[in-house]
Amino acid sequence: MKPEDLIAQINKKDSFLCIGLDTDMNKIPKFLLSEDDPIFSFNKSIIDSTNKYCIAYKINTAFYESLGAKGWTSMQKTVDYINKNFPQIFTIADAKRGDIGNTSKMYAKSFFGEMNFDSITVNPYMGSDSVKPFLEFENKFTIILGLTSNIGADDIQLKTTNNDFVFMEMIKSCSLWGNQNNMMFVVGATKSEYIEKIRNLIPNHFLLIPGVGAQGGDLKEVCKFALNDNIGIIVNSSRSIIYASVDENFAIEAAKQAMILQNEMKAILSERKQNS
Amino acid sequence: MKPEDLIAQINKKDSFLCIGLDTDMNKIPKFLLSEDDPIFSFNKSIIDSTNKYCIAYKINTAFYESLGAKGWTSMQKTVDYINKNFPQIFTIADAKRGDIGNTSKMYAKSFFGEMNFDSITVNPYMGSDSVKPFLEFENKFTIILGLTSNIGADDIQLKTTNNDFVFMEMIKSCSLWGNQNNMMFVVGATKSEYIEKIRNLIPNHFLLIPGVGAQGGDLKEVCKFALNDNIGIIVNSSRSIIYASVDENFAIEAAKQAMILQNEMKAILSERKQNS
Repeated sequence: MKPEDLIAQINKKDSFLCIGLDTDMNKIPKFLLSEDDPIFSFNKSIIDSTNKYCIAYKINTAFYESLGAKGWTSMQKTVDYINKNFPQIFTIADAKRGDIGNTSKMYAKSFFGEMNFDSITVNPYMGSDSVKPFLEFENKFTIILGLTSNIGADDIQLKTTNNDFVFMEMIKSCSLWGNQNNMMFVVGATKSEYIEKIRNLIPNHFLLIPGVGAQGGDLKEVCKFALNDNIGIIVNSSRSIIYASVDENFAIEAAKQAMILQNEMKAILSERKQNS
Repeated sequence: MKPEDLIAQINKKDSFLCIGLDTDMNKIPKFLLSEDDPIFSFNKSIIDSTNKYCIAYKINTAFYESLGAKGWTSMQKTVDYINKNFPQIFTIADAKRGDIGNTSKMYAKSFFGEMNFDSITVNPYMGSDSVKPFLEFENKFTIILGLTSNIGADDIQLKTTNNDFVFMEMIKSCSLWGNQNNMMFVVGATKSEYIEKIRNLIPNHFLLIPGVGAQGGDLKEVCKFALNDNIGIIVNSSRSIIYASVDENFAIEAAKQAMILQNEMKAILSERKQNS
């Protein structure tokens, strides 16, 4: 997907919501377990009911891998279903991959080529040759872990070098290898005190912001510093949407939660327009 | 696997060789492509011919994922084959995973529980809660990326904080979360100038050392600083062993390469005994 198509969709829907399909066999409604592929059935219902409120779906590979080859098939069916029925929606493989050059190339081929995701999250700890193979694919985005939403971010990312925080050094380096048309950065919603700093460094890149909802990040606080002229953010919520209910009506309840977040986003965008 | 069983095997075989099964459909002998599962057929032949020279097999997940669900099945069959026929051999999922706590837990369940690997490589960039779920499994090893063998290691790992290199800070932090019985560290063979420093910091942990062979690391140089009282290292070689030949005799040629490395290891260990 091209950046302009993503931006057009955001403007059209008044939404920058991404829904995380962290689909867990132990958390989906029990009545789905008798289906041939409960994971795909769950995802399909969630996608059918929520697609008008969101502009992206994020598939966290861990949940699918935990089911082995079968889970891998459910993942492929899910991304195929989105690509076929909602081609304007941006797909994210939340895989946090990264390895030496020739191995990263295999991962890039797998997620961009074979599976046809629009983007993949990449762990930059192994540096340039672990990131660059992903950037070679046209109309695909490499989403670098910048500053993550979890408590462990303190352990390495928030240490300081002689110049700056480790995560800032890392964003600086990575931004030289790609550009705003093929690279985004993950910045946790729970780390809003650092978002202004990050925005000053990379004013034009999209930020993928997880951690709103179950992890406690505040949407308005995040938007205050993260929005740019092209909106420039994708805010993800997973558990608080997809597990809103475990009854027969789970998809409707998920859509309600998605709509609430999309309405908040619409209000933020409209207030911003009035103030500009 | 318990550390004492790994050490016993190393002593018995006079070898600390790990063979990397980076099995690539484009590089295996052409005549295997007519088999039902060429990847597994290749791995099985390599394992049958090389197991007496090595003490571990490392499966890099990227190569299997690139084939989708089918590749995932080949990976499972490979680890099952090793566990069943050569239970004394240590298995490594070179997956470089790591995510927020509840997601790392899924990865740990998948690789330790479902797939029954003895160990997995973990990328520590997301910090404590991304690493700890792996440490909760008994008789399993979490192998943290310490200082990697690739050129990109310069970009983040070799930056310096106010105290030390980023990779040293990271090893220091991680070593507090686990111990020598459930944690190892990856240290690239191409980075031998740093190995002494790492050994001083963690004298008792096993080091997994890739980069000997195709990547250019020197075995003797590495051993000079990395060996400890329990030997304490696992040296990996992948491409230069498994792709020694693409003819009918590929497994025999692979065994020859493995034997050459094992002989070098035996000589190093024997020289060391004489000098002690």
